[in-house]
Amino acid sequence: MISVVILGAGNVATHLFKAFNKADSVSVIQWYNRNLESIKQFKHHVDITDDLSHLKHADVYIIAVSDDAIKALSRLLPFENKLVVHTSGSVNINDLDKKHKRGVLYPLQTFSKHADLDFSNVPICIETLDKKSYPLLKQLSKSISNITKKVNSDQRRVLHLAAVYVNNFTNQLYRIGHEITESKGAEFDLLKPLIMETAKKVQDISPYRAQTGPAKRHDKKTINKHLKLLENEHHKDVYKLLTKSIQLTHGRKKL
Amino acid sequence: MISVVILGAGNVATHLFKAFNKADSVSVIQWYNRNLESIKQFKHHVDITDDLSHLKHADVYIIAVSDDAIKALSRLLPFENKLVVHTSGSVNINDLDKKHKRGVLYPLQTFSKHADLDFSNVPICIETLDKKSYPLLKQLSKSISNITKKVNSDQRRVLHLAAVYVNNFTNQLYRIGHEITESKGAEFDLLKPLIMETAKKVQDISPYRAQTGPAKRHDKKTINKHLKLLENEHHKDVYKLLTKSIQLTHGRKKL
Ligand SMILES: NC(=O)c1ccc[n+]([C@@H]2O[C@H](COP(=O)([O-])OP(=O)(O)OC[C@H]3O[C@@H](n4cnc5c(N)ncnc54)[C@H](OP(=O)(O)O)[C@@H]3O)[C@@H](O)[C@H]2O)c1
Ligand SMILES: NC(=O)c1ccc[n+]([C@@H]2O[C@H](COP(=O)([O-])OP(=O)(O)OC[C@H]3O[C@@H](n4cnc5c(N)ncnc54)[C@H](OP(=O)(O)O)[C@@H]3O)[C@@H](O)[C@H]2O)c1
Repeated sequence: MISVVILGAGNVATHLFKAFNKADSVSVIQWYNRNLESIKQFKHHVDITDDLSHLKHADVYIIAVSDDAIKALSRLLPFENKLVVHTSGSVNINDLDKKHKRGVLYPLQTFSKHADLDFSNVPICIETLDKKSYPLLKQLSKSISNITKKVNSDQRRVLHLAAVYVNNFTNQLYRIGHEITESKGAEFDLLKPLIMETAKKVQDISPYRAQTGPAKRHDKKTINKHLKLLENEHHKDVYKLLTKSIQLTHGRKKL
Repeated sequence: MISVVILGAGNVATHLFKAFNKADSVSVIQWYNRNLESIKQFKHHVDITDDLSHLKHADVYIIAVSDDAIKALSRLLPFENKLVVHTSGSVNINDLDKKHKRGVLYPLQTFSKHADLDFSNVPICIETLDKKSYPLLKQLSKSISNITKKVNSDQRRVLHLAAVYVNNFTNQLYRIGHEITESKGAEFDLLKPLIMETAKKVQDISPYRAQTGPAKRHDKKTINKHLKLLENEHHKDVYKLLTKSIQLTHGRKKL
């Protein structure tokens, strides 16, 4: 049985707590947050505290607080030589105070506190500074996810950066789709099955192979029609740049 | 029973044939293509032909050929006053020869001949020039899909344009995610659950509400770290423009 203390009470901490709670081989023995308000609803399921000096002995301490607060919080922990990990895609592993055995448990997914999510499909990227701590973190991760992967700091940073493209930027393209349809009295809802299918396609084939459409076909006529139809200058800029992007990938012609 | 003749043998024609074949209230009585090669495998299930002068009488003729070929093919049809529809998001309904009753049956999805797809979830956008033909096209569409919608030409064009953003451009962001990860020895596969979740999220909440990340937070520190990490100038341009785009949507600050 691996004993765990969770620190922080945001999106990630909450999902981790729920996932570990379902795992047979892990026991969350304590949950810390700087204010008790957000975790007091769990007080019948776990010991909760807002006092670092009351932290219990555990095998692993998971710091799931805002990126900017990780460093300071790791310093304030009143013990040493225990495995302490953060959950961030971009924070340096060395930001953790060096009195600890240090590691990262980065769940590569987008979490919202109140949206349910099946953790077993969340890839967990793990890293430890000392080799000896690795098996413990691996075992811990495997208790909640089917996809665990050793990832070094460079790779983690790059995954986090790529995640901005496939999550934040993609979502913004959905938003532009929303703006374009609504502005002409068409229904964004009609695009939802296409959005799902677009994501589904690249689960099996590469984005390169999945590409279709006027940009890939270098179909100038349709591209010009589209640019004419767009009234918003910013939407036009996005159209032009991403058309160019597709054409850089598929052939040499430019807009 | 609605009798249908399909013309063309590409991605859309093939999926339509399969879907209609499962519908009780529709009978595909003939399938035309300019060459028989691509449809001869279906000859035991439907009458096939490559000769327009042999076309049978039917309630509806569906022209599912390349956009550029629709106009000419509709002229060559050796009859008049029958309901003839095309399946394109961007071709004008008036491109169909005016000797016909004219309509559009635009399935808003991305089709590949060999990838299975559940047609019942494909939104079908329908339009007819004369009101009297509308109920027939509506009934026909309802026989294969749960989502049928009256959409005028302007709305259809705009949906087709928005589809380029949420399908082609989104897929290109996946591609950039692929390029970024592979260039640093990280695994694109780890991003796949995030890609699915990003699409799933906007099925229930608006893209506006679904947005997260450094651009929305106006988190200059992380944005600058990311720009520094990016080696490819083109990837940087996309990062900057979409960050700006998110910030235009969420607040007034610029990069
Ligand atoms: N959200 C995601 O999709 C996601 C995905 C992968 C990784 N991560 C990483 O997971 C970590 C947590 O993210 P999150 O989304 O769960 O954050 P969040 O929902 O914003 O929650 C942040 C938590 O940190 C606490 N906190 C903030 N400043 C603090 C300070 N100075 N001292 C002590 N505690 C402090 C907050 O306490 P209060 O409750 O008192 O405000 C809150 O419980 C971050 O490193 C993030 O990069 C997030
Ligand atoms: N693919 C999609 O995701 C999608 C989605 C919604 C709507 N659409 C629309 O559906 C229509 C068909 O698209 P598709 O993807 O099925 O096309 P496709 O797979 O490229 O197939 C095109 C078909 O048109 C035939 N054709 C081409 N030029 C012709 C000509 N001059 N005369 C007669 N036939 C000709 C081809 O005949 P051969 O077999 O002899 O080459 C082929 O059967 C288009 O209007 C398109 O805009 C497509």
